[in-house]
Amino acid sequence: MTKAPALLPEGLRDRLPAQAEAASRVTRALVDAMRAHGYGRVSPPLAEFRETLGGNDERAARDLFRFTDPVSQRTLALRPDITRQVGRIATSLLAHAPRPLRLCYAGQVVKLRASQLRPAREMLQVGAELIGSDSVAAAREIVSVAIDALDAGGIGRVTIDFTLPDVVDLLAAGPLPITADLQMLRDELDAKDAGALARIGAEAYLPLLRATGPFDRAIADLRAFDTAGVLTSRIDALEEIAAPIRGRADLTLDPTERHGFAYQSWFGFQIFVPGQGDAIGRGGGYAIPVGDDQEEPAVGFSLYPDPLIDEGLGVERDSERRIFLPLGHDPALAASLRADGWQTVAALTDADEAARLGCGFTLGPEGPIAA
Amino acid sequence: MTKAPALLPEGLRDRLPAQAEAASRVTRALVDAMRAHGYGRVSPPLAEFRETLGGNDERAARDLFRFTDPVSQRTLALRPDITRQVGRIATSLLAHAPRPLRLCYAGQVVKLRASQLRPAREMLQVGAELIGSDSVAAAREIVSVAIDALDAGGIGRVTIDFTLPDVVDLLAAGPLPITADLQMLRDELDAKDAGALARIGAEAYLPLLRATGPFDRAIADLRAFDTAGVLTSRIDALEEIAAPIRGRADLTLDPTERHGFAYQSWFGFQIFVPGQGDAIGRGGGYAIPVGDDQEEPAVGFSLYPDPLIDEGLGVERDSERRIFLPLGHDPALAASLRADGWQTVAALTDADEAARLGCGFTLGPEGPIAA
Repeated sequence: MTKAPALLPEGLRDRLPAQAEAASRVTRALVDAMRAHGYGRVSPPLAEFRETLGGNDERAARDLFRFTDPVSQRTLALRPDITRQVGRIATSLLAHAPRPLRLCYAGQVVKLRASQLRPAREMLQVGAELIGSDSVAAAREIVSVAIDALDAGGIGRVTIDFTLPDVVDLLAAGPLPITADLQMLRDELDAKDAGALARIGAEAYLPLLRATGPFDRAIADLRAFDTAGVLTSRIDALEEIAAPIRGRADLTLDPTERHGFAYQSWFGFQIFVPGQGDAIGRGGGYAIPVGDDQEEPAVGFSLYPDPLIDEGLGVERDSERRIFLPLGHDPALAASLRADGWQTVAALTDADEAARLGCGFTLGPEGPIAA
Repeated sequence: MTKAPALLPEGLRDRLPAQAEAASRVTRALVDAMRAHGYGRVSPPLAEFRETLGGNDERAARDLFRFTDPVSQRTLALRPDITRQVGRIATSLLAHAPRPLRLCYAGQVVKLRASQLRPAREMLQVGAELIGSDSVAAAREIVSVAIDALDAGGIGRVTIDFTLPDVVDLLAAGPLPITADLQMLRDELDAKDAGALARIGAEAYLPLLRATGPFDRAIADLRAFDTAGVLTSRIDALEEIAAPIRGRADLTLDPTERHGFAYQSWFGFQIFVPGQGDAIGRGGGYAIPVGDDQEEPAVGFSLYPDPLIDEGLGVERDSERRIFLPLGHDPALAASLRADGWQTVAALTDADEAARLGCGFTLGPEGPIAA
């Protein structure tokens, strides 16, 4: 016996009606919420030159589906991420648009290899970027917009886990110099390995591991630890960012968390939903290269709602409003039902197929008749 | 002097806010109209195995962006078309769903090479497929759904140009046998080359070239030409398909037109919009291979609305409803404006940036103040 070959490559799949419609409904709600905050939607292409998708970086290039373009004779790649494309748009086509420039997007991204937590290699990415500032006000806005979007998308209560990507740099350059390599220190803090911290002579950093957890307690621990006050502006900023969303989300702090924040500047956050192991989104401040060693500051966030849609987010049961139209029905009446939100299913033969085609109603001469 | 390298490959481009939002708005309207007729939306992946995208056919394969998948070690391709993917879904995941099966879709497709008329290599394709029948009733429904969708999308009055893909086969197998190769005859009719028809001894087919143009006159010419009556059922069918859309679209007939109908069965149509040289959509009957020489009949249509969106279809001017929120504004008031359809643009500093950020209003303590 031979096993039938799979119809689709691993990590790529079809979405059937209930969930394809749900994906579209959730996307609409997320984008509409971001647009309501003045974020204009942009649509970059599915593929572009490898270099502009980060393909010069060997590590990032491993993530790319690459192929040769017969027209340009150059290597193109499928986009693994839309944030970078939005940065390219902001610094090219929209280089002269007024700042702060607010842009949002929704689209499919494709990765060459799936992650351990998520088998999908194609996924929906939806997000917003505020370009031209990474001030506390900008950070506060972007986090609030994320919460509004999650609300509008029906995602329910989330946990926002804040981090401070440059906390180690500030401490090492100030009150807590270390002899060990800074990258090693960051790695051990990220791994929460107290023993390793001691081994590399960074015991002074141990309290950072405890300044983690529910926001207010962790912030208090961080303030207590920061006797030299080098983190005061960062801590004050986080309090300011958190203020408008208190009560709308559960807040936590993990100041040395670095996962997925390789390009973040001074603040970052991950978005967790109960029951989902992996974050369903992340954001923070970052810098967009503009060429000639110039950079433009920005803040933004990305959401990856597929796992939630797979579990039923946005799925609607609309069979109650599905009506069978027998041969000879009144087309004007059918049109008025559609205008009223019904789904009509027209007969192609004179058989009564209402039940077989999932219709709870049949159109009679006077209107809908329940099956 | 060296020319700066292009930022994007030829035929791939970014959509900026006005038009990205318009594309989304038009897509929503088209899909909603198809769903109202009971067509469930499906979302196939952006890439799949070359074979299931038609890559076994050498001619079709030239159209494909191909690359090797490190996971399956097989060749994948970007989808150049969604219809075939919907056929795959209908005959695999949905093989046991009741027929007729009505599915719709909207998504980006990518072609390796642009056509002469359209420089784009990535484009939006939106369409509907009715699977399990290619009867006259099915054909009539799919054409009516296309017109409803075009209406809902704001596309305005279109011309539907019908064709009869098997007209030459019916005539050659019946009253008008020819000695020349049938494919050559089809090609010369498609090229409307009267001289060539004479040269290959197919003068009897010349009247077909004149049975072309406005629907009623061309249908009358075709009936007059078809003295043997082998086309009667086809002609009657076209009259039946045309009946419900008379008055809603301009109708023409070009019985031997074959462009883009390689896979069509007995009827086909192209959709033209005034001012657009190329068709903006096409449809017809076709057969989906099910394996073991089995086929499933289907009818469907595809729309390619990008050129219309480029010319302003779906673009809305919403700056009147764009309001600047100064520092210290009432957040509850701002939220209620957003719920009411306003776009709010929050200040990040205490500067008044309403005009610079394109806002026609500023939020005062009592509500919007016109600039």
